[in-house]
Amino acid sequence: MIDQKEPDNPVSAAVDPKEMRAVVLTGFGGLNKLKVTKKPMPEPQRGEVKIRVKACGLNFLDLMVRQGNIDNPPKTPLVPGFECSGIVESVGENTKGFEIGDRVMAFVNYNAWAEVVCTPLDFVYKIPDDMTFSEAAAFSMNFVTAYMMLFEVANLREGMSVLVHSAGGAVGLAVAQLCSTVPNVTVFGTASPFKHEAIKHSVTHVFDRNIDYVPEVKKISPDGVDIVLDCLCGENTGKSLTLLKPMGTYILYGSSNMVTGETKSFFSFAKSWWQVEKVNPIKLYEENKVIAGFSLLNLLFKQGGCNQVKTAVQKLLSLYDQKKIKPVVDSLWALEEVKEAMQRIHDRGNIGKLILDVEKSPTPLVSDVFTSTWEVLKGATEEESDKIVFLFLPSQKKI
Amino acid sequence: MIDQKEPDNPVSAAVDPKEMRAVVLTGFGGLNKLKVTKKPMPEPQRGEVKIRVKACGLNFLDLMVRQGNIDNPPKTPLVPGFECSGIVESVGENTKGFEIGDRVMAFVNYNAWAEVVCTPLDFVYKIPDDMTFSEAAAFSMNFVTAYMMLFEVANLREGMSVLVHSAGGAVGLAVAQLCSTVPNVTVFGTASPFKHEAIKHSVTHVFDRNIDYVPEVKKISPDGVDIVLDCLCGENTGKSLTLLKPMGTYILYGSSNMVTGETKSFFSFAKSWWQVEKVNPIKLYEENKVIAGFSLLNLLFKQGGCNQVKTAVQKLLSLYDQKKIKPVVDSLWALEEVKEAMQRIHDRGNIGKLILDVEKSPTPLVSDVFTSTWEVLKGATEEESDKIVFLFLPSQKKI
Repeated sequence: MIDQKEPDNPVSAAVDPKEMRAVVLTGFGGLNKLKVTKKPMPEPQRGEVKIRVKACGLNFLDLMVRQGNIDNPPKTPLVPGFECSGIVESVGENTKGFEIGDRVMAFVNYNAWAEVVCTPLDFVYKIPDDMTFSEAAAFSMNFVTAYMMLFEVANLREGMSVLVHSAGGAVGLAVAQLCSTVPNVTVFGTASPFKHEAIKHSVTHVFDRNIDYVPEVKKISPDGVDIVLDCLCGENTGKSLTLLKPMGTYILYGSSNMVTGETKSFFSFAKSWWQVEKVNPIKLYEENKVIAGFSLLNLLFKQGGCNQVKTAVQKLLSLYDQKKIKPVVDSLWALEEVKEAMQRIHDRGNIGKLILDVEKSPTPLVSDVFTSTWEVLKGATEEESDKIVFLFLPSQKKI
Repeated sequence: MIDQKEPDNPVSAAVDPKEMRAVVLTGFGGLNKLKVTKKPMPEPQRGEVKIRVKACGLNFLDLMVRQGNIDNPPKTPLVPGFECSGIVESVGENTKGFEIGDRVMAFVNYNAWAEVVCTPLDFVYKIPDDMTFSEAAAFSMNFVTAYMMLFEVANLREGMSVLVHSAGGAVGLAVAQLCSTVPNVTVFGTASPFKHEAIKHSVTHVFDRNIDYVPEVKKISPDGVDIVLDCLCGENTGKSLTLLKPMGTYILYGSSNMVTGETKSFFSFAKSWWQVEKVNPIKLYEENKVIAGFSLLNLLFKQGGCNQVKTAVQKLLSLYDQKKIKPVVDSLWALEEVKEAMQRIHDRGNIGKLILDVEKSPTPLVSDVFTSTWEVLKGATEEESDKIVFLFLPSQKKI
């Protein structure tokens, strides 16, 4: 975990009760489209829970949202973020099952990166007493995704093998932990070389993400693997199908290859549709293979899958209680540090989950500058970073 | 079951021990390419079991083989047939686990439709004492296919819904029986109207195979179904994907739509490859859907899946012992009646499995005539059928 200063004066201590702080995306684009502003306090509608947020999860998908690199992007300005943890502050009419003061984690269809969120009770889950808010914000999206892919789409069983990319990321680590709950499962992972030491105990074999993993896997397992979990997309679909054993399952659950620079690249979402290799069902018949896609957010917010997800959350919380799984938190960031946090995900610098800690004091931030100076700034003191920015950039202002 | 005469003089009673009777496909084409001839007695190689065959299973795939309507068809002449039951007559070297006299069922990579077959021990399974040879020949291919699709590819669980075509066929009935072993599973089936009465207790809802099932299913279940098992191919892939619920699974396991007339149609295997709608993995991601193919014969004979299949057979035999499943035999036919039997499958006249009963006496057959006269012939006595053939056909001969 990156060292962060302890919070001293929580920013939310002396605020107008009709306002709250939130991260706002003012338009699709680079890091400079993100800012922290005051927003009107939301109030719970019928069937909703109002949560005083303690921590929010940051996912690669949030970066793609920022770029507008998703299907049917919503209108800006918007408050990003799909998951948080916190304390129930009030409930709307007809909202049974939650009491004020309950410690919870929740999915939100945007708006999670704020001091307060309201979301339908179907997306809210109580958390165990010994689960920290950071852990809870690192739990729902990544473990549910990993769980449903492994056990509901792919039917992971004893003796199988799994290939997962970004093995040092939050989903990758969740996959590895869940695989370890089944006897004799082999996990192949790809990750940046500097992460290999840190994750060598969670995956069986780890390969450099910059080399072609296909021959590396085949050297160890000539027949291939039973399950491929692909968050990259692009050419990896064809490569993965090649690697699958008969009766094997390929699951596409992300498209991080679409992100190259800070803003939406030429290889955008719409184009990728045409560039990804399509699959002939007769080929699947001949080869006895399964191809699937998994999008937890679509399942939750477009396809009415909240009950299926709730069942998965309950099973996962039981595994947490048995100490078989535990979210890995990479680092905590104040809301005002969201750009630095996002750059860290973009650079694939994290091992585990990045969390926005709502009560954390920000280290002073300079807006619009983090694209290229993050590596310099992150080790610098406040005074030093002011100077660095002053040296490299013509204009800057404190938030 | 169709009434058949009891066997009186088994044809195999007084034969040369170095010869056996077998059905031979002399070339790809119509029914006239099938004949029964003497072949040299096979002897078991190392690791093989020699089986005195009692009954053989006849599948829709055998009809496609006859037409040459499969990928990479083998050379003719050949003995068709992929499954049989019988008694172990001898074993090759290094063939542990079987004794002479064992009652068994077996998969064979062609050559099943004969009085004697030899096949590797990995494809042979002992059968329970109370399972008849007809049941055993109706068991392996169809129940293993149904089981692996429902429980290994699709992960059938309580409360799910399944759509199966040819619900009166042997796989369809096996699917329905296996679904009934899981609580609260809804089975939608399509079948020819005359079968509806016979299968109404095995499926929850049955539709006419000649109408569009999509609106019919949606009337009952507006959200669609969890699992579609497709043995038709062609336009059904797209229709099925439309019908799938989020997290649903489509499995292509056959392509009976390719068969139209008695011989290979214009819509042959090679062409179908280009005509079937290809699927974009990104669409699966957005819709949370799974698409799969299943070919038991490829798994067994090309992809080394015999252990997976053996596990499935063991689970199925346990369900049989618990009287939870039982093969449905449509009718028994002598080897010499293979053309009539095949025509019955082609006409979709069967409810359950067609069996070639090796010890059954043939009712006298007239070659080359069954394409159009089966409906007339099947109820006729020997004398009558001779007359009918004489009336309608310019030439005929007894086999």
